[in-house]
Amino acid sequence: MEFSLTRDRFVETMRTQAEIGATENGGLHRLALSEEDKEVRDWFYEQMERAGLTVRVDEFGNMFGRREGARDLEPILVGSHLDSQPYGGIYDGALGTIAALEFVRELNDREITTERPVEIVNWTNEEGSRFQPTLQGSGVWSGALELDVQHAATDEDGLSVEAELERIGYKGDHPAKPATDYDSYLELHIEQGPYLEDNNKDVGIVTGIVGLTWGEITFFGEANHSGATPMHHRSDAMVAAADVITQVRRIPSTLGERTVGTVGSVDVQPDSINVIPGEVSFTYGFRDSDARTLQEAEERVLREAKAAAEREGVTFEHEDRANAEPVYFEDRCVDAVRGAAGDLQYDSMDVFSGGVHDATHVNSVCDTGMVFAVSEGGKSHTEEEYTSWADCYSAADTLAGAALKLANDKL
Amino acid sequence: MEFSLTRDRFVETMRTQAEIGATENGGLHRLALSEEDKEVRDWFYEQMERAGLTVRVDEFGNMFGRREGARDLEPILVGSHLDSQPYGGIYDGALGTIAALEFVRELNDREITTERPVEIVNWTNEEGSRFQPTLQGSGVWSGALELDVQHAATDEDGLSVEAELERIGYKGDHPAKPATDYDSYLELHIEQGPYLEDNNKDVGIVTGIVGLTWGEITFFGEANHSGATPMHHRSDAMVAAADVITQVRRIPSTLGERTVGTVGSVDVQPDSINVIPGEVSFTYGFRDSDARTLQEAEERVLREAKAAAEREGVTFEHEDRANAEPVYFEDRCVDAVRGAAGDLQYDSMDVFSGGVHDATHVNSVCDTGMVFAVSEGGKSHTEEEYTSWADCYSAADTLAGAALKLANDKL
Repeated sequence: MEFSLTRDRFVETMRTQAEIGATENGGLHRLALSEEDKEVRDWFYEQMERAGLTVRVDEFGNMFGRREGARDLEPILVGSHLDSQPYGGIYDGALGTIAALEFVRELNDREITTERPVEIVNWTNEEGSRFQPTLQGSGVWSGALELDVQHAATDEDGLSVEAELERIGYKGDHPAKPATDYDSYLELHIEQGPYLEDNNKDVGIVTGIVGLTWGEITFFGEANHSGATPMHHRSDAMVAAADVITQVRRIPSTLGERTVGTVGSVDVQPDSINVIPGEVSFTYGFRDSDARTLQEAEERVLREAKAAAEREGVTFEHEDRANAEPVYFEDRCVDAVRGAAGDLQYDSMDVFSGGVHDATHVNSVCDTGMVFAVSEGGKSHTEEEYTSWADCYSAADTLAGAALKLANDKL
Repeated sequence: MEFSLTRDRFVETMRTQAEIGATENGGLHRLALSEEDKEVRDWFYEQMERAGLTVRVDEFGNMFGRREGARDLEPILVGSHLDSQPYGGIYDGALGTIAALEFVRELNDREITTERPVEIVNWTNEEGSRFQPTLQGSGVWSGALELDVQHAATDEDGLSVEAELERIGYKGDHPAKPATDYDSYLELHIEQGPYLEDNNKDVGIVTGIVGLTWGEITFFGEANHSGATPMHHRSDAMVAAADVITQVRRIPSTLGERTVGTVGSVDVQPDSINVIPGEVSFTYGFRDSDARTLQEAEERVLREAKAAAEREGVTFEHEDRANAEPVYFEDRCVDAVRGAAGDLQYDSMDVFSGGVHDATHVNSVCDTGMVFAVSEGGKSHTEEEYTSWADCYSAADTLAGAALKLANDKL
């Protein structure tokens, strides 16, 4: 008999988690280490114990539940995150965490003993909304981020991660690092983009995660009277910034089919209707699956900034904000996901993730793969985020099938 | 003997006023109705009394000092304002107010009785920094602004103009309106622009004040994930705004030699490096001496907004923020200023004011003229504002000469 999740229970579990931190508009307000996060953690802890898992919490609050295998091999790890954006959707990382729980429940129901142990995981603070950076729990666990530094990170009210972990009872006793070697990691997440829906697919086989280059450019012009200063006497920092912003819209189309570029944040000084802007800072970000394309994008934006500065008679400074290399998943994990989708007759396509995920960090620890669920309209980080139960189930079922393959992979 | 101000005393008086609210960097911090404003008002009150003027303060704090003439004719009015920007220069309106005081002192020294009475004035809150709008005292006095409404205007701390007038003792007993018909009004102000310096002139004959049209445009796009959303799925409000901002730089050059256009303020939501801007508001402002040009500028910016919205798949709203017709001074006042500059052998040129001044409002009450002093580098509303004592004196001397002409003009 084919291995498939129990659909009714899966949907019921999704609905139950969605009640914890539910917003009036059908979304979630479940910021990392908040009361709502504590509540969903307590509930998840109890569900893992009821499913017979050996639960452990590490000193960064990452929650693991272990189900032994037939042999003492490296375990597979499956999961995602239960925290949300301030006004996020009920799917996001929760779908992947619930799918992992339903996977082990299904193994229990069917009395299947996998060759390898199976661990499921809920990572701490994936969102990076309340505490920065994003991917904090998996970053510490994988060694990309330092435990002490991240424990000391504070929210807007000055509360630290460590203090909040202690307050809600989730600063665990286990070291925040891999307890053992792992065979592989699988994560289901919503796509947060439109490709699956645009192509009428049931599920996405994620082959990797785009890299990114983020920076900030500040133009220094001359703040002056907006009436008395003739146009040819102006050094307008906002005009220079606007020139570059229009080019950030254009640069991706000259580089790659799926290159994206965004100016998300702009700060204008003195920001008065009656004064020529003297100083304007803005952020830019480019993403692509090719590291050389990212480098070229950054070079182009700096050339545009230089040209705009010359045109407008202003100076500028450039600051690197973040750089991440593209991630390419191992073939055996991608093949396991593709094989499971095929076995289950789901219509799938390969996609490259435009957003980062906990899999980004875990990929440095063990072989990694991801499944994407359809995001209607590509919307995410909003209460309007939506994935039909059918699409949720297709993705969760594919994840479970892939996880079973890897858990029984003895090599 | 030619009528000229006493140079040493004039410079000394300028230096004295500049000590009240002086900043470390040689500027002024003398916000309307602040402690510093009270101090400079007390000092100015005393100087007017010592000069033998009959002092009165109106219920909006405008301060008048009257010197009788030989005949019972409509008086001439001469003055400006003593308040400053948060970090302004020591010249701005103070130069014009001190020049008016030195004019009556010089009349006293020379025992000149003018045909018409002479009144000098210090207008309340010209700057509009602490309380909005700008030109508040002269606006109320001339009837353009309503007394009750402006009394109720509050600063950032919720303190009202009326309460602050009472606190510093400058809510006077006289009605805030013209006490009599006035023959004419003359005001000296720094140019706040570069034309006089660029043309190596000693003094500017102001022929009028530009009109302006101010507005705000808000683009509504779709906030979305900056990585997972492909370029062709975006409706980026910031890109649309940037398109229009670059056009506001360009539009003036298609309209008039001295048309100016500025985007001074920009607000981006949600303003995150990682999110495509969903809503962006920005202000625009155009100024010109021709009302039709202003209308054309507004129409063009709206056409650009429409085109940008179509390109980017966003919508927009437009809000009028302010409109002011250009002001053209009466020939007899302009001629009096030009004649005085010529008599005194100052090298002058006609200029149109790019900024608004109390003269804008007073022009609706009586014939009005203005004298401009050189602004080095065109800088104003900054501690770097600078006018040499020679240039201050040339302008003050011209003002005095013109005022004497009008005060002896019996028609």
